[in-house]
Amino acid sequence: MNTYGMAFRITVFGTSHGPGIGCVIDGCPAGIEVSQATIQKDLDRRKPSSGIGTPRAEEDLVLVQSGVHEGRTNGSPIQMFIENRDRDSSKYAAFKRTPRPGHADYPALVKYGPEHDIRGGGQFSGRMTAPLVAAGSVAKSLLATKGVRFAAYSQAIGGVRDVDERSLHDVLDRAYQRPTRAATDQLDERMRAEILAAKEDDDSVGGVVRCFIDGLPVGLGEPFFDTLDGELAKLLFAIPAVKGVEFGNGFRASGMRGSQNNDVYHFEEGRVRTSSNNSGGVLGGMSNGMPLDLKVAFKPTASIPKAQRTVDLGTGKEAMLKIEGRHDPCIVPRAVVVVEAVSALVIADLMMRGGYIARTC
Amino acid sequence: MNTYGMAFRITVFGTSHGPGIGCVIDGCPAGIEVSQATIQKDLDRRKPSSGIGTPRAEEDLVLVQSGVHEGRTNGSPIQMFIENRDRDSSKYAAFKRTPRPGHADYPALVKYGPEHDIRGGGQFSGRMTAPLVAAGSVAKSLLATKGVRFAAYSQAIGGVRDVDERSLHDVLDRAYQRPTRAATDQLDERMRAEILAAKEDDDSVGGVVRCFIDGLPVGLGEPFFDTLDGELAKLLFAIPAVKGVEFGNGFRASGMRGSQNNDVYHFEEGRVRTSSNNSGGVLGGMSNGMPLDLKVAFKPTASIPKAQRTVDLGTGKEAMLKIEGRHDPCIVPRAVVVVEAVSALVIADLMMRGGYIARTC
Amino acid sequence: MNTYGMAFRITVFGTSHGPGIGCVIDGCPAGIEVSQATIQKDLDRRKPSSGIGTPRAEEDLVLVQSGVHEGRTNGSPIQMFIENRDRDSSKYAAFKRTPRPGHADYPALVKYGPEHDIRGGGQFSGRMTAPLVAAGSVAKSLLATKGVRFAAYSQAIGGVRDVDERSLHDVLDRAYQRPTRAATDQLDERMRAEILAAKEDDDSVGGVVRCFIDGLPVGLGEPFFDTLDGELAKLLFAIPAVKGVEFGNGFRASGMRGSQNNDVYHFEEGRVRTSSNNSGGVLGGMSNGMPLDLKVAFKPTASIPKAQRTVDLGTGKEAMLKIEGRHDPCIVPRAVVVVEAVSALVIADLMMRGGYIARTC
Amino acid sequence: MNTYGMAFRITVFGTSHGPGIGCVIDGCPAGIEVSQATIQKDLDRRKPSSGIGTPRAEEDLVLVQSGVHEGRTNGSPIQMFIENRDRDSSKYAAFKRTPRPGHADYPALVKYGPEHDIRGGGQFSGRMTAPLVAAGSVAKSLLATKGVRFAAYSQAIGGVRDVDERSLHDVLDRAYQRPTRAATDQLDERMRAEILAAKEDDDSVGGVVRCFIDGLPVGLGEPFFDTLDGELAKLLFAIPAVKGVEFGNGFRASGMRGSQNNDVYHFEEGRVRTSSNNSGGVLGGMSNGMPLDLKVAFKPTASIPKAQRTVDLGTGKEAMLKIEGRHDPCIVPRAVVVVEAVSALVIADLMMRGGYIARTC
Repeated sequence: MNTYGMAFRITVFGTSHGPGIGCVIDGCPAGIEVSQATIQKDLDRRKPSSGIGTPRAEEDLVLVQSGVHEGRTNGSPIQMFIENRDRDSSKYAAFKRTPRPGHADYPALVKYGPEHDIRGGGQFSGRMTAPLVAAGSVAKSLLATKGVRFAAYSQAIGGVRDVDERSLHDVLDRAYQRPTRAATDQLDERMRAEILAAKEDDDSVGGVVRCFIDGLPVGLGEPFFDTLDGELAKLLFAIPAVKGVEFGNGFRASGMRGSQNNDVYHFEEGRVRTSSNNSGGVLGGMSNGMPLDLKVAFKPTASIPKAQRTVDLGTGKEAMLKIEGRHDPCIVPRAVVVVEAVSALVIADLMMRGGYIARTC
Repeated sequence: MNTYGMAFRITVFGTSHGPGIGCVIDGCPAGIEVSQATIQKDLDRRKPSSGIGTPRAEEDLVLVQSGVHEGRTNGSPIQMFIENRDRDSSKYAAFKRTPRPGHADYPALVKYGPEHDIRGGGQFSGRMTAPLVAAGSVAKSLLATKGVRFAAYSQAIGGVRDVDERSLHDVLDRAYQRPTRAATDQLDERMRAEILAAKEDDDSVGGVVRCFIDGLPVGLGEPFFDTLDGELAKLLFAIPAVKGVEFGNGFRASGMRGSQNNDVYHFEEGRVRTSSNNSGGVLGGMSNGMPLDLKVAFKPTASIPKAQRTVDLGTGKEAMLKIEGRHDPCIVPRAVVVVEAVSALVIADLMMRGGYIARTC
Repeated sequence: MNTYGMAFRITVFGTSHGPGIGCVIDGCPAGIEVSQATIQKDLDRRKPSSGIGTPRAEEDLVLVQSGVHEGRTNGSPIQMFIENRDRDSSKYAAFKRTPRPGHADYPALVKYGPEHDIRGGGQFSGRMTAPLVAAGSVAKSLLATKGVRFAAYSQAIGGVRDVDERSLHDVLDRAYQRPTRAATDQLDERMRAEILAAKEDDDSVGGVVRCFIDGLPVGLGEPFFDTLDGELAKLLFAIPAVKGVEFGNGFRASGMRGSQNNDVYHFEEGRVRTSSNNSGGVLGGMSNGMPLDLKVAFKPTASIPKAQRTVDLGTGKEAMLKIEGRHDPCIVPRAVVVVEAVSALVIADLMMRGGYIARTC
Repeated sequence: MNTYGMAFRITVFGTSHGPGIGCVIDGCPAGIEVSQATIQKDLDRRKPSSGIGTPRAEEDLVLVQSGVHEGRTNGSPIQMFIENRDRDSSKYAAFKRTPRPGHADYPALVKYGPEHDIRGGGQFSGRMTAPLVAAGSVAKSLLATKGVRFAAYSQAIGGVRDVDERSLHDVLDRAYQRPTRAATDQLDERMRAEILAAKEDDDSVGGVVRCFIDGLPVGLGEPFFDTLDGELAKLLFAIPAVKGVEFGNGFRASGMRGSQNNDVYHFEEGRVRTSSNNSGGVLGGMSNGMPLDLKVAFKPTASIPKAQRTVDLGTGKEAMLKIEGRHDPCIVPRAVVVVEAVSALVIADLMMRGGYIARTC
């Protein structure tokens, strides 16, 4: 359903082409500085980069309608609302009969019946990530007071893979200066070319977002079931188009020997650290104090201009479909800040559940 | 924490070397046939295969202490208890000072303090998967009444990768006849050799478990946050040693074009099906009616006989550690039935939440 | 926190003198008719009756900003927003130093610190019941499709007690035609006089709201902990000023003999019924098929014009306080529809959890 | 369902005449002293007093099977098991056809169908309060470390009402020295006579339990919905036979004027206190720092030896029923420690949710 979290909670609402979209954040301690400008900065990082994104032009101006007074949270739920302005629903009615391959149309129609709001994908639209980013921005402000930082970037786009090792410092804030959110200018060039080539072919590409989180207390996570990695994975899979999540070495670890993969301990200025970070900062479902390192696989955008086969649910026959609408040939650059946001929502909840941040001042 | 699920719920308890381990299942409808023999069959599939597993010999006899009367569930919570018999705790006390690399020891000591039950890994032991398997067996019995089936197998062990396409029918029940749970006898031979080679070297290997689930209703899953893939991922990451989860093409999809990766629709005997199953049966967080296809990456067993560097939390100096205990050089073969079990717990909960199975007769 | 329910869920937000108040309803099946007019009718029943209520004049126009399209729910969350228009916050700043007796001011200041929004009582204001009524109206529309009906009335106001036995039919819709929501015109006169006498004395009175619910399926409720009576009680205590909840005979049963209090069974047109309804329709935490009968005790309005003693948290000395603001001398008449609303939210959730209403069409 | 709590959680299982009953406590911090003797002392307080209780003789020996090592909690879930020994199920089979008035039999049969375990009332038996008491004892041990204390007593039994004002100190530990748990020896005599008179008449009586809780931090509770009073009420209604719950003046407040009922503030040794405690220690769903004062109405025991009318679900005709079994003519004296236990479970959860007790050392 549409609420996540036990102590720091988010509820999302809205559909792509309804009056608006938004969220309610509950449990945020009173006294946290929250400015519209900070939230807007993150929302802007989610906007399509010129040339490589959708032509749909949404200002995404966020209205904070409760919970913040004179720039600070007051302990009551924070509601944020973003109006949908640039709506063009004319292209969508047909998809109730001819569901788009790779989209939620077909299962959603079976689940919700003919009332399902299919315009723009309804509640399954990538547009729903805007309130996630707004809420994630508040979570990041809260977590910054405890020294927790997030830095994500595009590790792969289509066939362009960034194979170099990186750290949080390499990409913090900087990746956002590049249209593709790549770690270097050179990669940015190549990734941009990859996207444009797909676009040229009336096609799309996917990619991988990597996110670092540092400053976590050792022991964060609530095993057996509410683990640090499990909660992150659950919420990351809620982002449209995500098909895989891994921590540290991830799938690569499955081919390694224990003696290679184990991260051995040593002391660093009196603190326990590991010499490598193959675990990605998580052991037994808890933070081990090393930077969290997660990777998220995004499939290529399902909406492509190329003609595709599908079924006509009205006639019971097969049909051809051409998707017009306005779509991103690659959503990965826009998803980078979404991965940060969603991760921040999980970390904020686990920090509060674990008592690392007080509910009450 | 130790409870999962909203409508079909499991609570686990116990530690590796305490008096016993077990679980409580809540919300299981009345009237479901549950036999100790069926549960035991699954527990036996979790036992180490001769030659390639730990010498710890646990009978894992499950006692059903409530909720089942004359072979049928009666609507009250089902409690199951498994005594710990073959306990040898002598080797573990030292790890409170010298935490084992790759294990939960260090974060658990920080989180729970000196009272943390470190014997056998305590609540972080792979042994905790026994109650998961027992509960999963009940979930599978419940789901079988609706035609839902599970079939998992070892897709990779160490460097041995099974690159052939498989279906549920290829591996259903059959993989369990092979010690490594491989899909073919030939792969079983090669995987067995891979494990023995690691053992020979006082080392360990990881692997990948793939699981098929068929018979799911279209629309299963509770977006936006409680998605089919997200809930499965959350619970799969609760299994010790899991480092990655993907659906369908997963990480591979990130390098593909949309036109390749989209699964186009057609009719098959009046039912809507897709021509390929790159999505792994899940779109928009809901089942699309195709078989669910998930892959889980396991890291190599952290406990290896080889000497390793670590820290001595008592002296504040570095130290060497040799783990004696009794351990599996590869836990993948034993994890296959655990992946099925955990998946069944999630599916049972989502089926009941979605109203596909009635809570009450 | 600010979310209630597992399968049919409500989240509230806003404060009395912020930009607005509202709610999100999640889990409401698609295809339910929801009209602004129906919701507004319930909101109007919550407005102060002329002469006996507060002079604060709020139109309480509800905006349905998502989840409803062309008059029907579409399966996505329903967000409703009510602007705060008639705000006069000038009188409240002082209460941060001199907390009002009988109000949440003091514990809220300790809990949320100086950022607590004390204007109009903030999130502890009776104004927060407006979104409850709006959401309850949607719940009642949903439940009406299953034949469940709600009818509440004022059973007591101050010293005026309605000692006659009543049934749902006696009060359904009719009580709302009387300013005090009494069951008869004569009682209405007396209750009105009671309120005006208190007002005359710069004082206030409390009362009792009784609510009938019929059409419930036998077995509704999720014992052991999520009982029909327990869930109702939990949510009824969330209404500001509630100090007691009882079912059927309630506290009176404590003085009776078992042979008097037990409701014996008989058949009525083939259905099992009880000859009396001392249990109030609930046994073992489940509906027994008789009308649910609950009573809710409201304390007298805490805000009274009379001068009262309090403390000055700034000086650490005692102080006198005169509350100006705009307040109801008795909130019971306005609380009647709130009791219905809150009960409907609980019943809707339990009906969906129990599978009596499908989540999906 | 059978789990309660978010941060300090209890799960119950078992039925009256199955192999045993028990519970799992999750979230209890590590390092808390838990002795079998302390738990047993509370369980003994739940046993029937000689002469006025049931002849069913259960030793109620509790086995702590996980979570406690060498007398201290270790951070993993605490499982407790109580064997059912004195089972005589012969009398119960008939009730599947002729449900007992005032019992859960009829709704439970409709809800769970023919598999419902009706022996001894199954999961609806008062026997299920034994694991509540065991868990409550652990909660009280945890809360004692923060200075929170509980003291309950019988305020009324049948027609005998204790009208004197009492405080926690008047009854703490002392009420348990009297068979009826009355506040004075004289009341104990009269209540005892009331019970024996009912017994003589083959009948039963109810009563009221009052419970004081002191030492709570100001601000405890999680409004809007998870209020201190609402959570307590929810769990108190889970105790079999409870029909009403009130705080402070409760229903009596409904007849009072605001100027009488408001508790005015003053300073006492620098702390903010109220001169009266009409609110029962709760304002706006939060503790105000005064002792919590709650009252719980219990109906007379439903099982009475007197013949009663009922229906025969087999023949569809009316029938007479004589309940033999072994029952308490009044369960109030045994319920006193149950009210304390259940209250402690709620307070422990809210204290941990609010961050007043750390989850982790």
